[in-house]
Amino acid sequence: MRIALLGGTGDIGQGLALRWAADTSHEIVIGSREASRADAKADEYETELSSRGIDRVVEGTDNVSAVEDADVVVLAVPPYHVAETVEAVSERLDEDAIVITPAVGMKSDADGLHYHRPGAGSVTAVADDAAPNRTPVVGAFHGLSADVLANLDLDLDLDTLVVGDDQDAKETAIALAEGIDGLRALDAGPLANAAEVESMTPLLINIARYNDRMHDVGVKFS
Amino acid sequence: MRIALLGGTGDIGQGLALRWAADTSHEIVIGSREASRADAKADEYETELSSRGIDRVVEGTDNVSAVEDADVVVLAVPPYHVAETVEAVSERLDEDAIVITPAVGMKSDADGLHYHRPGAGSVTAVADDAAPNRTPVVGAFHGLSADVLANLDLDLDLDTLVVGDDQDAKETAIALAEGIDGLRALDAGPLANAAEVESMTPLLINIARYNDRMHDVGVKFS
Repeated sequence: MRIALLGGTGDIGQGLALRWAADTSHEIVIGSREASRADAKADEYETELSSRGIDRVVEGTDNVSAVEDADVVVLAVPPYHVAETVEAVSERLDEDAIVITPAVGMKSDADGLHYHRPGAGSVTAVADDAAPNRTPVVGAFHGLSADVLANLDLDLDLDTLVVGDDQDAKETAIALAEGIDGLRALDAGPLANAAEVESMTPLLINIARYNDRMHDVGVKFS
Repeated sequence: MRIALLGGTGDIGQGLALRWAADTSHEIVIGSREASRADAKADEYETELSSRGIDRVVEGTDNVSAVEDADVVVLAVPPYHVAETVEAVSERLDEDAIVITPAVGMKSDADGLHYHRPGAGSVTAVADDAAPNRTPVVGAFHGLSADVLANLDLDLDLDTLVVGDDQDAKETAIALAEGIDGLRALDAGPLANAAEVESMTPLLINIARYNDRMHDVGVKFS
């Protein structure tokens, strides 16, 4: 499978790119608004992988070129860039491509850090509204610590939740997630459930903040 | 410590009463709007405990009498009864009592089961608004399966999240939670974080619904 990570030069993009490159044989292409930044980061990821004896090609290019021929497009961008990022690449999306969004809107105020629910209902819904009708959108990989993903010395033992209305696309996302060693994907139902899934990200950050000896908090359901 | 479980004849009240009776030496009093129902349920709980060789007194009375001399008052009632239940007992609350609320508002529609956020911001905030100013309110024990709690054959290995603005009251709630074998309590911050904590309950129910071999889903953070 060919995975395009738009905004793949950022923290979560780096984490997912390194894990997929290390644990699977999927083709990885990093997208950025500037091709040169993506290319430089792709080289960095290759060097990091190579230092661990993993000989992998990671491509880097602009977001629009990155989506060409991609089976899966991951929107590894901040929540306020989700809509414009999807719109910028819409015409070039492969007919059978699926879009995955891990972004979460949060706001910090005097009371602390909270979920910021977009008018559309969730960031996943924002992406779904912006995507072409034929392109299924799935929410997944929310709340995973980018630092933990990017540190390949760390063994994972985490769950991630997958939401969306297209069952085939969800199954693809679940399989992609479970390609990463130590990551289990659970189905959290239709896209209408995305707000509760996204709400867990500020919760995990707050748990890290208010409890001793908890950093980069993750979650397991049983 | 003396714990009054208002609405303690219901599922979550039963679960907490049995666990506290089995695992701690706290005095347990069950409250209900009808004293006779509470009394009958308290007898049932005693019988259940006794069948396991646990010789414990569980008292049963009306909600108003139950709060007298109680150090901790648990609102084991549906979310839409939280405000009236607090108001009905306010004058009889002990000066140093704390109130704990496990209730979560949920709504079920064509799209499934979702968090129903009250106008006050959370059910915990509803309870806080209804309680006397001197009485600290803490949210805790959300999303624990009543069936799992009530089945003393089952060993727990679960987390519960505690939110509130009064640090002493939160510490009391954390200690009470951790008095139950296999239950760990984590601080999720101030009362303003209650919505994210409460949102996890419909999420857990949805995870049970959409995944094979998952029932009475609980959560562990790490």
